[in-house]
Amino acid sequence: MTSRRFALTLSCPNRPGIVAAISDSLFRHGFDIRSAHQFDDPSSGRFFMRTVFVDAGSDDGLAALRADLDGFAERFAMKIALRDQSVPRRVMILASKFDHCLVDLLYRRRIGELPMQVTAVVSNHPAETYAVLDLNGTPFHHMPVTRETKMEQEAALWGLIQSTGTELVVLARYMQVLSDALTAKLQGRCINIHHSFLPGFKGAKPYHQAFSCGVKLIGATAHYVTADLDEGPIIEQDVERVTHEATPEEMIRRGRDIERRVLSRAVAWHLDDRVITDGGRTIVFAQ
Amino acid sequence: MTSRRFALTLSCPNRPGIVAAISDSLFRHGFDIRSAHQFDDPSSGRFFMRTVFVDAGSDDGLAALRADLDGFAERFAMKIALRDQSVPRRVMILASKFDHCLVDLLYRRRIGELPMQVTAVVSNHPAETYAVLDLNGTPFHHMPVTRETKMEQEAALWGLIQSTGTELVVLARYMQVLSDALTAKLQGRCINIHHSFLPGFKGAKPYHQAFSCGVKLIGATAHYVTADLDEGPIIEQDVERVTHEATPEEMIRRGRDIERRVLSRAVAWHLDDRVITDGGRTIVFAQ
Amino acid sequence: MTSRRFALTLSCPNRPGIVAAISDSLFRHGFDIRSAHQFDDPSSGRFFMRTVFVDAGSDDGLAALRADLDGFAERFAMKIALRDQSVPRRVMILASKFDHCLVDLLYRRRIGELPMQVTAVVSNHPAETYAVLDLNGTPFHHMPVTRETKMEQEAALWGLIQSTGTELVVLARYMQVLSDALTAKLQGRCINIHHSFLPGFKGAKPYHQAFSCGVKLIGATAHYVTADLDEGPIIEQDVERVTHEATPEEMIRRGRDIERRVLSRAVAWHLDDRVITDGGRTIVFAQ
Amino acid sequence: MTSRRFALTLSCPNRPGIVAAISDSLFRHGFDIRSAHQFDDPSSGRFFMRTVFVDAGSDDGLAALRADLDGFAERFAMKIALRDQSVPRRVMILASKFDHCLVDLLYRRRIGELPMQVTAVVSNHPAETYAVLDLNGTPFHHMPVTRETKMEQEAALWGLIQSTGTELVVLARYMQVLSDALTAKLQGRCINIHHSFLPGFKGAKPYHQAFSCGVKLIGATAHYVTADLDEGPIIEQDVERVTHEATPEEMIRRGRDIERRVLSRAVAWHLDDRVITDGGRTIVFAQ
Repeated sequence: MTSRRFALTLSCPNRPGIVAAISDSLFRHGFDIRSAHQFDDPSSGRFFMRTVFVDAGSDDGLAALRADLDGFAERFAMKIALRDQSVPRRVMILASKFDHCLVDLLYRRRIGELPMQVTAVVSNHPAETYAVLDLNGTPFHHMPVTRETKMEQEAALWGLIQSTGTELVVLARYMQVLSDALTAKLQGRCINIHHSFLPGFKGAKPYHQAFSCGVKLIGATAHYVTADLDEGPIIEQDVERVTHEATPEEMIRRGRDIERRVLSRAVAWHLDDRVITDGGRTIVFAQ
Repeated sequence: MTSRRFALTLSCPNRPGIVAAISDSLFRHGFDIRSAHQFDDPSSGRFFMRTVFVDAGSDDGLAALRADLDGFAERFAMKIALRDQSVPRRVMILASKFDHCLVDLLYRRRIGELPMQVTAVVSNHPAETYAVLDLNGTPFHHMPVTRETKMEQEAALWGLIQSTGTELVVLARYMQVLSDALTAKLQGRCINIHHSFLPGFKGAKPYHQAFSCGVKLIGATAHYVTADLDEGPIIEQDVERVTHEATPEEMIRRGRDIERRVLSRAVAWHLDDRVITDGGRTIVFAQ
Repeated sequence: MTSRRFALTLSCPNRPGIVAAISDSLFRHGFDIRSAHQFDDPSSGRFFMRTVFVDAGSDDGLAALRADLDGFAERFAMKIALRDQSVPRRVMILASKFDHCLVDLLYRRRIGELPMQVTAVVSNHPAETYAVLDLNGTPFHHMPVTRETKMEQEAALWGLIQSTGTELVVLARYMQVLSDALTAKLQGRCINIHHSFLPGFKGAKPYHQAFSCGVKLIGATAHYVTADLDEGPIIEQDVERVTHEATPEEMIRRGRDIERRVLSRAVAWHLDDRVITDGGRTIVFAQ
Repeated sequence: MTSRRFALTLSCPNRPGIVAAISDSLFRHGFDIRSAHQFDDPSSGRFFMRTVFVDAGSDDGLAALRADLDGFAERFAMKIALRDQSVPRRVMILASKFDHCLVDLLYRRRIGELPMQVTAVVSNHPAETYAVLDLNGTPFHHMPVTRETKMEQEAALWGLIQSTGTELVVLARYMQVLSDALTAKLQGRCINIHHSFLPGFKGAKPYHQAFSCGVKLIGATAHYVTADLDEGPIIEQDVERVTHEATPEEMIRRGRDIERRVLSRAVAWHLDDRVITDGGRTIVFAQ
C-alpha cells in the first residue's frame, strides 16, 4: 500500500471543540498530520482550517474519516472539502492573443512546479497564433466568439469543461467577459488575472490612464471570477515601481511580468488547496 | 563670498537646443553644475529639466543668469523656477487627531532630514491633543471648523498662510476637505496623503471595505491637492503586504507606517525641487 | 470575573496526538480559542504551535490547564510557554547617539501600538542627548562604557535588568557589542537591529562599501542577539531600492527608515508571542 | 533616408562645459535628442552621461559628430561609446541544466521585449536537455566541460564568441565558473545571475543555509562578471518575502522567479545602453 496525501479544508461558525474533534478523528483513524493552518475570523465569527495529512494507503481509515466528517458537517454546520492531493487537478487554460501567462503556466507545469493536468488550451484566436508553443500534446481548441455567437460559444465551452472533467478554469489574459450564467457555474473554480493600479481606473486603455495620472506603482490582481467584472475574491496581488519615464508601452511590459507571477501564485495556491473563499474574500494559507 | 546652491527646474515644448542653451549660460556665468536630470516626454512632446549648481557667491553671475533665463522663457515658451536651496522652504503642517504624520515630519526636521522652516502647526483639534509633542517653539494654531464656519476658518487659514510666508502646505492626515477656492490658491504647493488599495474603494471606512474584499496589499499615495478630492498629481506611492489575518485595525496600523513614509518622501522631494508637475501628472527626479 | 487572554507557545518533536491533546485540554477547562497557528517542520521533524485563548477569569480552569501542560511537557518532550497577554511585557531600551529607533518605539508605545511597560531607557550617551524627547516618566540611565569599564558597565546593566524585572531588552541602535556572558543571560529575549545588504559587507563603514559596490537594495535585519555579532535568529527583514544617485549619506537616511520599521515589527511580534526560536532560526506567526 | 537611433554613453572627470559641448555638437550636426540622463558622482568627481538621439539618416552628420567626439575624448579624458541602436546586439546565452532563465530570455526575444540577435545557445549539457524548447533556428552548441578539459572548452567557447561576433555573453544559470583569463576578455560584456540573501552565505547549498538561518527575504543579483566569483559590478537586484514555512525547495522555486526577472532586466538595460560601469559599480539609467 502506498501512502496518500490528503488536503482537508473546511469552514464553519467558530465554536469550541472543532479542532479537537478533527484532530482526534485523524489521530484515531491512523492519519499523520503534515501541515495545518487555521484562522478564526474575529469579524465574522467564522472558523477556517486546512490540514494536510498522509495515510498508509488503507481505505478503511479513509472511510472512517469520511463518516466522521459527515457527522462534523452536520454538528458544526461545516463546509468540508477533502481531496487526494496525489491526483493532479484537471485545469483548462483560456487565452487570447497575448500568451505570456499561458506560456508561463505551461512552463511551470513542465518543470513540475504546478501539479496539474491541462485538459485543454482554449482560445478565441486560431492555433497559428501559438505555433511557436510546444503544447506537448495538450488539446488546443479554437473557439472564436462574436457578440452574436457568444451564447453558442459559451455553451460549447461549458460542454468542453464538462466532457474533459475540468475542475479549474484559468483565464490567462483571456480577453472575453464570461456571461453571468457561465460565471455562476464556475463559482470558486475560475481564476482571472487583471492589471491593478493605485488608484484604480475604469474603462478602456487603463495603462494610458495610469500614465496620464503619473502613477508610481503598477500591479496585478488574481481573483476568482464572479458576475462583477474584474472583481471577485482576491487571491494574490503584486506591484512594481515605475517612474515618469515609463511609457504606457513600458508599463504594459512591466505589467506582463507582474501578471504572470501573480497568476501563477494564485493557481499554485489553488492547486495546493491553500485558498478558502468566504463570501467576497479569501483565506489564503500561503508559504 | 560663500558658495550658494541653486535648483533650476523648467518645462517647455521639446525642441533642439534647449540643453545647449542652458548649459552654455551656466558655464559662461561661472556656475558649476552638481546634478542634472532631464526628461523628454514622448507622449506630450514636452521637455523637463532640473539642474542643481553652485556659484562662488557673486551676485553678478546670478543677475546675468536671470537675464538669460528670461530670454529662454520667451524663446522656448518655458516655465522656469530658480530657487536658492540654502534658504529652507517655509512649510505649514495641518493635522487632525491622528498625529503619526505630524510627529514624523517634525522628527525628520529635527534630525536635519527635511530642510524646512515650519511656519505653523494647524489643527482642528485643540493644543491638548498634542500635549506630548515637543513643538520646539513652532507656533500652534487651533482652528476648529464646522460646516457653518468652514468659510471663515478657511479665510483665517489663508490669512495665516500669507502672513507667515508659507510656501508649502502639508496635509498630514488633516481630515478636512479644503474648498475648491482654497485648493486653487494652493495649486502645486499643497501635498496630501491618503490610503490606497488595489482596487480602490470609494466612500466611508475604506479599510473595512478592503478587509471585506480580502485585499493582499494596502498602500498610500501622496499627491498635490486639486479640486478633485483625494486625487491630483501623484508624487509617491508605496504598499505593504497583508494576509487574511489582518483585521481592519491591523490594516489601519500598517497604513500609518506607509502613510508617514510616503508623505515624508513626497515632502523631501518637493523641498529638494525634485518634482515638476505637468497637468495631472508629476515628473519626479528621485534618488 | 474579568476575561483574561493567554498565549500558549510550544515546540516539540512532531508526533500524532499533540494538537488533539492541547485542544481537548483547552476545551475541557473552559477556554475559548481565539487564534491558532501551527507549523510542522519537515526538515527537523519538530512541531511548533501558538494558541491564543480567553477564559472567564476563573483560576480553577487555569490551574487545571497548567497541570495538563506539565503532563504534556513530559509526554511530548515539549517546551512550553504560557503567558497572560493582559500583563504588558517589561521592556528595556538601549540606545546610543542615533535615536530614530528609540523615538519610534516610544511613539508606538504612546499610541498603543506596542503593549509594553518600558522599564528604562539606557544609553552610553548622557541625558542631554535626548533632551528633546518626552520620556513621559520612563527612567533614563546614563551608562557610559569604555574598554576598561565594560565589565563593570555590563554588571550594572545586568543589575538594572534584574531589579526592574525586565523581560525583553531592545538594542535600538545601541552601538556597543554585548559580551558573550551577558548575551548568554539574555538568550531569546534581546533583539537587535542592523543594516543588511545584498551581498553582505563585513567591517567598517558598510554603507560606503555598499555604495562602492553599487548595490541596488539596502535593508535591515532584526534578530535575537547571540554571541555571534550581528547574527542570530532572524525575526524580520526589509529592503528599499536605491539608485546610483544615492550617496552613502542618502543610504544611511533610507537605512534609518528601514531599521525603525523592521525593529518595531520584530518587537511587536515578540510582545504578541508570535515568535518561537528553534536553534538558529525563528518561527514567526505574522499577520 | 531612414532615421536612425543612436545611444551615446560616456564618462569622464567632471568639469564645466561637458554637457554644453555635447549638446552643441548634436544640435549643430542635425541630431534630435530623444532622451538624456546624466550623473555627477560627488564621491569620485566623475561625470556620466547617456544620450539617445535620432538623425535623418545622413552619414555626413554622423561623421561630423564622430570627429567632435574624438576631440572631446581627448579634451575631457572621456570614455565614449556610440552605438546605432537599430542594429540588435549579438548575444550568446550559456546555460546548464536549469533552463528557467534561458527559456525566459528566448521568450522575451520572441515577443520583441529584448532586441537582440542570439548568436548561439551554449550548454555543458546535451541538446536533449532542451528538447522541448523551440530554439527557432538559433544554433545550439554542446560544450561539455571537466576539470581536465576546461582550458580546451574555454578556448572553443572563446573561438565561438569571436567567430559569431558575439558582443554580450549571458550566463543564464550557467553553473560553470569562467577562468580569470576568459573573464578578462569579457569584461563589461558578460552578465551573470546568482541568488542573494540577507545576510550572504558562502559555500555550498546556500538555500539550505538560508533556511537554517530562517531568512525572511530571498533575492537575486545580476552583475557583470569579474575574476571575483559571484561578485562584480551589480546591475540589478530584487527580493521576495518568505516565511518559516518555505522549505529549501520552495525557496529554490521562488528563487527561479526572482532570478529570471532580475536577469532579464539587467540584459534589457544593457541592450538599451542604460548601464555604464565605473570600477566596481554601475550607473544604471533605469526607467
